[in-house]
Amino acid sequence: MAKVPHRLYLTEEQMPKQWYNLRADMKEQPDPILNPATFQPVTEEDLYPVFCEKLAHQELDGETRYIDIPEEIQDFYKMYRPSPLIRAYNLEKALDTPAKIYYKFEGNNTSGSHKLNSAIAQAYYAKEQGLKGLTTETGAGQWGTALAEACSYYHIPLTVYMVKCSYEQKPFRKSVIETFDASIIPSPSDTTNVGRAILKEHPDTTGSLGCAISEAVEKAVSTPGYKYVLGSVLNQVLLHQSIIGLESKIAMEMLDEYPDVVIGCAGGGSNLGGLIAPFMQDKLLGRANTRFIAVEPASCPSLTRGRYAYDFCDTGRVTPMARMYTLGCDFIPSANHAGGLRYHGMSPILSKLYHDGYMDAISVEQTKVFEAATFFAKQETILPAPESAHAIYGAMEEAKKCKETGEAKTILFGLTGTGYFDMMAYSAYLNKSMNDYIPTDEELEPGFAGLPKIPGIQE
Amino acid sequence: MAKVPHRLYLTEEQMPKQWYNLRADMKEQPDPILNPATFQPVTEEDLYPVFCEKLAHQELDGETRYIDIPEEIQDFYKMYRPSPLIRAYNLEKALDTPAKIYYKFEGNNTSGSHKLNSAIAQAYYAKEQGLKGLTTETGAGQWGTALAEACSYYHIPLTVYMVKCSYEQKPFRKSVIETFDASIIPSPSDTTNVGRAILKEHPDTTGSLGCAISEAVEKAVSTPGYKYVLGSVLNQVLLHQSIIGLESKIAMEMLDEYPDVVIGCAGGGSNLGGLIAPFMQDKLLGRANTRFIAVEPASCPSLTRGRYAYDFCDTGRVTPMARMYTLGCDFIPSANHAGGLRYHGMSPILSKLYHDGYMDAISVEQTKVFEAATFFAKQETILPAPESAHAIYGAMEEAKKCKETGEAKTILFGLTGTGYFDMMAYSAYLNKSMNDYIPTDEELEPGFAGLPKIPGIQE
Repeated sequence: MAKVPHRLYLTEEQMPKQWYNLRADMKEQPDPILNPATFQPVTEEDLYPVFCEKLAHQELDGETRYIDIPEEIQDFYKMYRPSPLIRAYNLEKALDTPAKIYYKFEGNNTSGSHKLNSAIAQAYYAKEQGLKGLTTETGAGQWGTALAEACSYYHIPLTVYMVKCSYEQKPFRKSVIETFDASIIPSPSDTTNVGRAILKEHPDTTGSLGCAISEAVEKAVSTPGYKYVLGSVLNQVLLHQSIIGLESKIAMEMLDEYPDVVIGCAGGGSNLGGLIAPFMQDKLLGRANTRFIAVEPASCPSLTRGRYAYDFCDTGRVTPMARMYTLGCDFIPSANHAGGLRYHGMSPILSKLYHDGYMDAISVEQTKVFEAATFFAKQETILPAPESAHAIYGAMEEAKKCKETGEAKTILFGLTGTGYFDMMAYSAYLNKSMNDYIPTDEELEPGFAGLPKIPGIQE
Repeated sequence: MAKVPHRLYLTEEQMPKQWYNLRADMKEQPDPILNPATFQPVTEEDLYPVFCEKLAHQELDGETRYIDIPEEIQDFYKMYRPSPLIRAYNLEKALDTPAKIYYKFEGNNTSGSHKLNSAIAQAYYAKEQGLKGLTTETGAGQWGTALAEACSYYHIPLTVYMVKCSYEQKPFRKSVIETFDASIIPSPSDTTNVGRAILKEHPDTTGSLGCAISEAVEKAVSTPGYKYVLGSVLNQVLLHQSIIGLESKIAMEMLDEYPDVVIGCAGGGSNLGGLIAPFMQDKLLGRANTRFIAVEPASCPSLTRGRYAYDFCDTGRVTPMARMYTLGCDFIPSANHAGGLRYHGMSPILSKLYHDGYMDAISVEQTKVFEAATFFAKQETILPAPESAHAIYGAMEEAKKCKETGEAKTILFGLTGTGYFDMMAYSAYLNKSMNDYIPTDEELEPGFAGLPKIPGIQE
């Protein structure tokens, strides 16, 4: 075996031609999504008013193990993929650890993150169905940028509801999204009933993902020919994002490596679910005993401090209900919290795996996150997104433990994106004006109290 | 031959281990750099007060054809190189051209451009010489960011003089540079004699590269243990940047391709000189007849409207004099001009090649540049830096000509960087508030009138 290169790129021929559907190998399926009017499991047809038909099918398909990636999507992937699997030689050296650290870097495309993997798939299916336009929400802006790129490629009009505090903190995200021809509206806005209602009750709110979702859904269902798309949480998104894990696994096999630990940041779960998918398959099938660690912000701790319960996916309670780890759909994270990972819930697939003991989770305050981010940037010359830096923090902690124990573990983490549009947050860190707000139990209580009551299921 | 992949990455083993020194194959050397006190060609020793010794040697070495890349620099290169050679399938399709368009994309590193190739080399030699610190200037901020990254890697203190209008337009560039521990000062400043003098004469000036160079040089020579480094124009920089062309040539050979046209943007010449180096060698040695095109901004047209004359490299007239195409060291480009490519002169190597007819040059107004940039972004999903978009414009023009003539030319251009920190300029383009200022002949006259008088050489 030759020396492991710093960066390993698969060839186009080696790139996966199918997505992997983790649900097909789960012993127990996540609980079904419920129709909030009937409390019955939703059908594909129930989802058609909101989602593209093919995506509604993928959302509810827990059985098909491998799903062909349409050739047009494969061709688009080839414009910015494969993403490199990087050996963090300099980080290892700086930490003086016996661990081997690998990371899958998804930031080298203009959207700046892994979000493009699902955005292009969703835009493709929208085009195929002949839709007139799409709506979506974006928090930190990565998903909005990715979807704008994808929609611009297929000439699909797009309206993006952007969480107001991000919209104000990141004026340049707006320009990027507009460069790709999308329109962008700060949320909550007066363009929807739900937005107007929220503004009336909380005129000073800085917004939340849950609220932006409500507005985007309302806009989609009230505009003929429009549908709504979402960049995380959903099963279909985790399916598309499996490309991250599949490529990682092929690359690690080429190096005769297999991870002892896989670490990812967790907001809605899109990156983490995609990264771990094929490795979790091995664990579910008893072929490996890898440890999986979700790292979430202490200010929005859905896995580590949330309830495993049925909840709405949005603040306006217009979406179906999913069973997931949640802080309650009324929860709005502190405006002091930088970057993404601001969602009140968590992917139902990841929630189920976590609940069943297949995955661990930790939370971390943002000063520590930015400490890890700047340390990493100086060693590895990549400026990470604050979201991604949660995973860096987790990987560094594991590597430090290896130093103590002398174990030469193989660590794989997901570096989901770059931080070019997060310099205001970096600046706050450098100026030591970063706020490490952690909600108290009392502050979390109203969110839990607002969880929906479902006769016979959740009283 | 299999289908050409969208992106071709060399393996680590295929990466060049030597830089190529184009001067070794030039039939006539560029005219010597002159000591402004004696009007005699400078010696290595003359340069020692300003430059590292090894870099001073490289600056004056016109003979050594190949120079070994120190292993430490090779290792650093492996953290972000090889950069991909990309086949612009979607751009070709959108232009409906028979031409094959390739581009070498240097933007996938945190500095966002090719500048890191020379920054790490210069930081390495500074470390090797045991220097206490470095100073430099930056225009659009790409060089400052790259050098901050490189100096942070070697723990070398760095002070960056940033052209004031960029400093004000790009607050987030500042944060990136500070994240990598460098200090940054808007230029002109009151920290140097030359800065104070310029501020006294032009209190409202938005600065220029020439002025920032003067300040950085003064700071270096007046601070014990400090030297000055520069990111473009110099022969040493073109030497380091030859890695771009060398990698491109290897990749094209793997594809059985050879460019009919090579196109690059031109400010000081660092990217263009590096990209064309091995192809120009073939032309100089009669092995190929490639056409080379430099694309420069109409607002700072040193090749297309400048004089081929001896001039100072800086506004404060503290540097040696080089013979180059220049607008005069007093020339300050319009503050309306977005991005880099703001230097009054041009690499003496490129100037000589242009003067001797080996290379063509065109200039373009910035609205057309941003038109090309956004068109490209939508086809190829990469948001280019304004600088790089000059090359895109040139490549698109060539491809359109091919459509008219039916010629299936092979076009190679340099995509030097990404535009994440240039969104204010993109925004101006989107809002149709972009200014296409082109200096009149009368406005250029004072710059030419200020060219230095050199007895017996330039009266």
